Amino acid sequence: MTQQVVRSAAANGNGGRDVNGDLAQRYLSVRAVTESIAAVLSAEDQTVQSMPDVSPTKWHRAHTTWFFETFLLKPQRPSFREFHPRFGYLFNSYYEAIGERHPRAERGNLTRPGAAEVGGYRAFVDSAMVKLIHGTSPEQTALRQLVELGLQHEQQHQELLLMDIKHVFSRNPLAPAYNEKLPHHVASTPTPLRWTEVDGGLVEIGISATDAFAFDNEGPRHKVWLEPFRIADRLVTCGEWMDFIDDGGYRTPSLWLADGWSTVDREQWTAPLYWQRADEQWQLFTLGGLRSIDRAEPVVHVSYYEADAFARWAAARLPTEAEWERVAELHARPGAGNFLSSGRLHPASAARDSGIQQLYGDVWEWTTSAYHAYPGFTPSEGAVGEYNGKFMSGQMVLRGGCCVTPADHVRATYRNFFYPWQRWMFSGVRLAAQA
Amino acid sequence: MTQQVVRSAAANGNGGRDVNGDLAQRYLSVRAVTESIAAVLSAEDQTVQSMPDVSPTKWHRAHTTWFFETFLLKPQRPSFREFHPRFGYLFNSYYEAIGERHPRAERGNLTRPGAAEVGGYRAFVDSAMVKLIHGTSPEQTALRQLVELGLQHEQQHQELLLMDIKHVFSRNPLAPAYNEKLPHHVASTPTPLRWTEVDGGLVEIGISATDAFAFDNEGPRHKVWLEPFRIADRLVTCGEWMDFIDDGGYRTPSLWLADGWSTVDREQWTAPLYWQRADEQWQLFTLGGLRSIDRAEPVVHVSYYEADAFARWAAARLPTEAEWERVAELHARPGAGNFLSSGRLHPASAARDSGIQQLYGDVWEWTTSAYHAYPGFTPSEGAVGEYNGKFMSGQMVLRGGCCVTPADHVRATYRNFFYPWQRWMFSGVRLAAQA
Amino acid sequence: MTQQVVRSAAANGNGGRDVNGDLAQRYLSVRAVTESIAAVLSAEDQTVQSMPDVSPTKWHRAHTTWFFETFLLKPQRPSFREFHPRFGYLFNSYYEAIGERHPRAERGNLTRPGAAEVGGYRAFVDSAMVKLIHGTSPEQTALRQLVELGLQHEQQHQELLLMDIKHVFSRNPLAPAYNEKLPHHVASTPTPLRWTEVDGGLVEIGISATDAFAFDNEGPRHKVWLEPFRIADRLVTCGEWMDFIDDGGYRTPSLWLADGWSTVDREQWTAPLYWQRADEQWQLFTLGGLRSIDRAEPVVHVSYYEADAFARWAAARLPTEAEWERVAELHARPGAGNFLSSGRLHPASAARDSGIQQLYGDVWEWTTSAYHAYPGFTPSEGAVGEYNGKFMSGQMVLRGGCCVTPADHVRATYRNFFYPWQRWMFSGVRLAAQA
Amino acid sequence: MTQQVVRSAAANGNGGRDVNGDLAQRYLSVRAVTESIAAVLSAEDQTVQSMPDVSPTKWHRAHTTWFFETFLLKPQRPSFREFHPRFGYLFNSYYEAIGERHPRAERGNLTRPGAAEVGGYRAFVDSAMVKLIHGTSPEQTALRQLVELGLQHEQQHQELLLMDIKHVFSRNPLAPAYNEKLPHHVASTPTPLRWTEVDGGLVEIGISATDAFAFDNEGPRHKVWLEPFRIADRLVTCGEWMDFIDDGGYRTPSLWLADGWSTVDREQWTAPLYWQRADEQWQLFTLGGLRSIDRAEPVVHVSYYEADAFARWAAARLPTEAEWERVAELHARPGAGNFLSSGRLHPASAARDSGIQQLYGDVWEWTTSAYHAYPGFTPSEGAVGEYNGKFMSGQMVLRGGCCVTPADHVRATYRNFFYPWQRWMFSGVRLAAQA
Repeated sequence: MTQQVVRSAAANGNGGRDVNGDLAQRYLSVRAVTESIAAVLSAEDQTVQSMPDVSPTKWHRAHTTWFFETFLLKPQRPSFREFHPRFGYLFNSYYEAIGERHPRAERGNLTRPGAAEVGGYRAFVDSAMVKLIHGTSPEQTALRQLVELGLQHEQQHQELLLMDIKHVFSRNPLAPAYNEKLPHHVASTPTPLRWTEVDGGLVEIGISATDAFAFDNEGPRHKVWLEPFRIADRLVTCGEWMDFIDDGGYRTPSLWLADGWSTVDREQWTAPLYWQRADEQWQLFTLGGLRSIDRAEPVVHVSYYEADAFARWAAARLPTEAEWERVAELHARPGAGNFLSSGRLHPASAARDSGIQQLYGDVWEWTTSAYHAYPGFTPSEGAVGEYNGKFMSGQMVLRGGCCVTPADHVRATYRNFFYPWQRWMFSGVRLAAQA
Repeated sequence: MTQQVVRSAAANGNGGRDVNGDLAQRYLSVRAVTESIAAVLSAEDQTVQSMPDVSPTKWHRAHTTWFFETFLLKPQRPSFREFHPRFGYLFNSYYEAIGERHPRAERGNLTRPGAAEVGGYRAFVDSAMVKLIHGTSPEQTALRQLVELGLQHEQQHQELLLMDIKHVFSRNPLAPAYNEKLPHHVASTPTPLRWTEVDGGLVEIGISATDAFAFDNEGPRHKVWLEPFRIADRLVTCGEWMDFIDDGGYRTPSLWLADGWSTVDREQWTAPLYWQRADEQWQLFTLGGLRSIDRAEPVVHVSYYEADAFARWAAARLPTEAEWERVAELHARPGAGNFLSSGRLHPASAARDSGIQQLYGDVWEWTTSAYHAYPGFTPSEGAVGEYNGKFMSGQMVLRGGCCVTPADHVRATYRNFFYPWQRWMFSGVRLAAQA
Repeated sequence: MTQQVVRSAAANGNGGRDVNGDLAQRYLSVRAVTESIAAVLSAEDQTVQSMPDVSPTKWHRAHTTWFFETFLLKPQRPSFREFHPRFGYLFNSYYEAIGERHPRAERGNLTRPGAAEVGGYRAFVDSAMVKLIHGTSPEQTALRQLVELGLQHEQQHQELLLMDIKHVFSRNPLAPAYNEKLPHHVASTPTPLRWTEVDGGLVEIGISATDAFAFDNEGPRHKVWLEPFRIADRLVTCGEWMDFIDDGGYRTPSLWLADGWSTVDREQWTAPLYWQRADEQWQLFTLGGLRSIDRAEPVVHVSYYEADAFARWAAARLPTEAEWERVAELHARPGAGNFLSSGRLHPASAARDSGIQQLYGDVWEWTTSAYHAYPGFTPSEGAVGEYNGKFMSGQMVLRGGCCVTPADHVRATYRNFFYPWQRWMFSGVRLAAQA
Repeated sequence: MTQQVVRSAAANGNGGRDVNGDLAQRYLSVRAVTESIAAVLSAEDQTVQSMPDVSPTKWHRAHTTWFFETFLLKPQRPSFREFHPRFGYLFNSYYEAIGERHPRAERGNLTRPGAAEVGGYRAFVDSAMVKLIHGTSPEQTALRQLVELGLQHEQQHQELLLMDIKHVFSRNPLAPAYNEKLPHHVASTPTPLRWTEVDGGLVEIGISATDAFAFDNEGPRHKVWLEPFRIADRLVTCGEWMDFIDDGGYRTPSLWLADGWSTVDREQWTAPLYWQRADEQWQLFTLGGLRSIDRAEPVVHVSYYEADAFARWAAARLPTEAEWERVAELHARPGAGNFLSSGRLHPASAARDSGIQQLYGDVWEWTTSAYHAYPGFTPSEGAVGEYNGKFMSGQMVLRGGCCVTPADHVRATYRNFFYPWQRWMFSGVRLAAQA
């Protein structure tokens, strides 16, 4: 987190507002969202790790708490006594500077602390955090920024928690629903795909130093040359994906990157994750359980390899992240879209409106851009410098947030990143093409 | 289970006794033991599978229930409706004849059914089973034998449950105790090892057709020629094992079988499982938590490879299963020993009595005998024929029961079996030698 | 090699014979066989290791030479200078007592020394060995026994060399023949299988101290109780194996040991090794190239798991090694059979004679006996003590020699051993049954 | 290979020159270089594959021949009969459009065809190719371009052959030299590193349609915005790398990308590939054998992860490929440098001249640019379209050629690419920094 770009809404000019009160309020509100997501899950649900990429629910709840304990309470409060002497070892995710930690793939072996004890840990830290926040002086801007980083971090884990529990449930032959009362998906009529032309030229992307919060990897703002291009006005649909499958998409090596084809072969992929064939019909496993697929709804849970192959089959390509960000600046508004707060927990079909649809929310959109440092990037000093920079190798950028992202967590410059073979996140496809 | 040898106590001549009542009583009593073992475990504890060999507690509770539902209730009661249509898939362990089943290594991914729902499953089946037992006619001997098989099966899982939860807890850096109030281990004075001479000759081992229950693999009774031999009067102790370690036992290839040495090298073994070095002292992880080691107590959780290497280092050998059984018939009484009911859940030091000590209970004793069929062995017809016979390859026989075995579950002819590299069961060593 | 049982033909009472001359003659003759087997192979053929179990031809040629250099020349000749200072590291197979060695799986990475240089190594050692042999005094019996052990060791590697090069060639899509001019296999009429009854009782098996050479694992001679049994008069044929396949043998779990079934599943076995399906016909890859299968010829290259499953399908079983040895003593003569010297390099169909056929030669016959120490077994002192004893775990005994075994290398007490999943050796099946 | 950019020297306006004669001459000359590189290797040397990334020498010789047979002779000469019907299967590297092929990791299992037979294959195809070339008409430009592509392809394999045999020899404890008479490395005095400033601005990189040959991935030429930057005037030296090691470089996680650190941990890296510690001194395995390291010579055989960590330790960074190409256009001449023809087969120390040194030749220089398509890139139609495009995922670009690259094979726009963990190629480091 470079100091130039990270700014919390709470950090600056207050004009008489109760800055600390606002921040404490926001702290409690974000923390409560996590607990409400977890509340419908049993103790057993919260314990399982169905693959090394997945973490147990109670681990997410404890790790986000550890973040505040480690980066705020311990450094700021000399008299602070940690909740448990070994929780630092158990709930450090990947911060080498903080010290040794429990191996990631072993998180599912921890039966203790139980879900209820984790609740106690959260309450303990929340109480201390609220005191800490109320005690900050006006000039402790950096400290308030760090609280905001912790909250943004917690929002990321709210999304991860839902991705992860979906994967856990998908491995159970009983196909349990996270929530059986999700709004029922209503099949709709597919809208035809239309292309929007975007001018090229020397543009700027990335975050500049402003008051608003951003992660260090979103900056510095810098110039990029763009050739003119076209962008699809909506996401690729399940119906289009069925056509790809029916046309032998998963059996035609010439459509695939070499690494993609070897993955298809090794993993025996024949469809997106969570698609199941039953009685010649495609079924979809969702957080609401198993149901049939609507041709009009966006495809989700596809890897970069699949997105890239689909685009080649469609005689198009994926956008670069600079192109995506340019479109976002010209055509969309961050807060609008199908986010966590809609309660759907699944992407929705495109509206029949004119203009670029679904850019924010619904699904993370794969770009062809490798996740690398922007020119002039330097990570923050200290342990939080490990937050983003050390992952800048081998992963691809995704943009726009998805249906399980908190609405106020995403913006035009936001860079998500995953390995090209991963697909348990809510990832989908928007096509681009040369102008 | 060959029909000649399997006999339940409940199966025969009753002389006016209430055979069905007795069996129902025994049924409920064995089932209650399982629940009492599980009762101290939280929902999270009951869910985790820390390695493929281990099963979650709630899986054990459900699988033993499935056994009665599948082999008794469904075949015997045409109107019986199973508790849940998918439980047959989830809780079949390895019976190919019954059909497809959930992969073993995936048992830890099941958050549902929860521990409480498994309790409901058990109650449902118990109720139907008690009715079934009370309704058997005097001549339905085979049916009562099958109930007895189910109870013996459940007793095996009582032991497995405790082995497994010990392994689960051992993977947690918090080192939780299964029971913090276990009887405290009191350090004692080691007794010197003495040898007993046993005559050779043509002996018989194995079970013959009698009234008592036995597994099919214990028969038929058959002749074996034994040369005279010597047998140790007590188990190998932790103190002796420390001497082996200090003498470079784990670093000296000439002491080891080739497969054993490559396992030591690959797994980086330097001591028995659950031994930890801390501040130049050996600590022991037990079901009562972590504590220091008593030189006089028996070593436990060693593999066949380690037992064999130790014996070579000690200029002795392990007994064959025929030798062990001969000793048992001459020198010991099955019911006496440190079993599950003692509540220690750990082997105890040898008494200073004369005679062969610790033959039953405390630890399973490795023999040099591969687990193969006795001459003339034929497995039972039907699915229960898979109970034992198909495992007769690659495993070694252990004898005598251990501190987590129900006391009435073991006898002189009882054959337990594990792969030579396994050591999460309560396995230990008794030495033998040529006369 | 226990001193009681190992006796070389050259070691004793000579009655005027030139003991040293005879041994030197035998030495050169055995060594020449190795070179003649390798002579038809190119430098490239001699270099490849197609799986970790396989060693390159030139490695076999060098390792057998290293054996004489290490166990004879270096200890016996103080002035002896080894051929190359690093060959001890490269060509030690598994003797821990000799020191560090090149990892087995890396043998195929050695391009140097080349095949020609290995020839130079052999000539160098042969020259020194002949001098050593001629210089032995009459009382140096142990030394001459060690020469004999080296020659028996070389004979084992002659067989291994042919097994291994067969595997190497089998991995080449060009399906090269080791020898294109092998005697052509002539299809014959299958003979019906007949059973011979054998009495039970207290018998003795194993080698006793005699003049003839034997490996340490063949003794001591000891008593075994046998029940009466029946033994098949010939080997199982390919035609019978086709019936097993056609009857779903490889798809029926109830026929298999649990470990066998998981191997079938993981390795996708549907037939013996080297069987290929082409145009609805079974083809066989042999040392003479690819050809069609004769229903009458013995099946070869089957694992223990397959042999055991076939026997179960045939309502029979495999013999124990004691039963096999009893049959051999009653019914067969070691030297007679289809051995290396026949030049067929493949098992031949059974003759239509009466009596037990094919007991020696053709294929190694799987027994149900785990490869363990006989009662009272102690391995030799020193490095050669590693020859046999340390492999006594996890493997099964095979008996009788095969079509690539030197005829004078096998006897009734000879114990070969392999893991139950291995099948690149010339292993086949003779059935047994209860009387 | 897009038709706009691929142009062979032989393809165009000849002004009276013998275009076909020149091309035939070039064909024979390039092909002869391959044979001269292989000529010092024995048949055994040419057979081994020491890891899946490596191919045997004779495979390289055959595969480059297959390329001409498959893409030139078979399509152009209806009467052409291929040398061997199965060579197409054996020597296709990765062209899915051509059909099934031998698995890459199995190349080392092929003892046949032998090295001599591959020589016959090469002569057969050369003869047919020379005839084909002489028979081309002036307007068959595309055909001559395809010949040139085949020759460029062969040059790439000349480099691969030397990389691969170096790896093969490195796995042999005898440490054989490819050539014992390589020019001896003379230790020199390190030159201080100096920085050159380069202006930013909107620049163009990539190849435009010209007469000269280029691969399809080098185009289209396109605009890129560069910020001002600094570039090191020479490569990173072994002495600097020793300082990195001594400063704990391989033990400090904060210097590494997360994927890099896990590779260091898993592979136990403590130095570049081919460095060995002996008697407290660093030794270097080269194509000339083992020798001590000169602090002034460039470091080579480092992965991207190591290059990136070193740069971070040095408070610098790696250049982007656009920066590198900009420097090359401003400051260097492609033909000048230490290439294959120097016969050193190892990078040389920087000269003490002013100006940018070592940009071409010596070592491939890692850039921070992921290997992706340039804007507007489209691969060629047909099988040769698989040449480059399908590898555009997960790999990083390297620039400039190395000491085993043919001098006329490299240019400013040339893009080499490897995975970030690979290091058996001649890869090294040039530092860059913000201006």
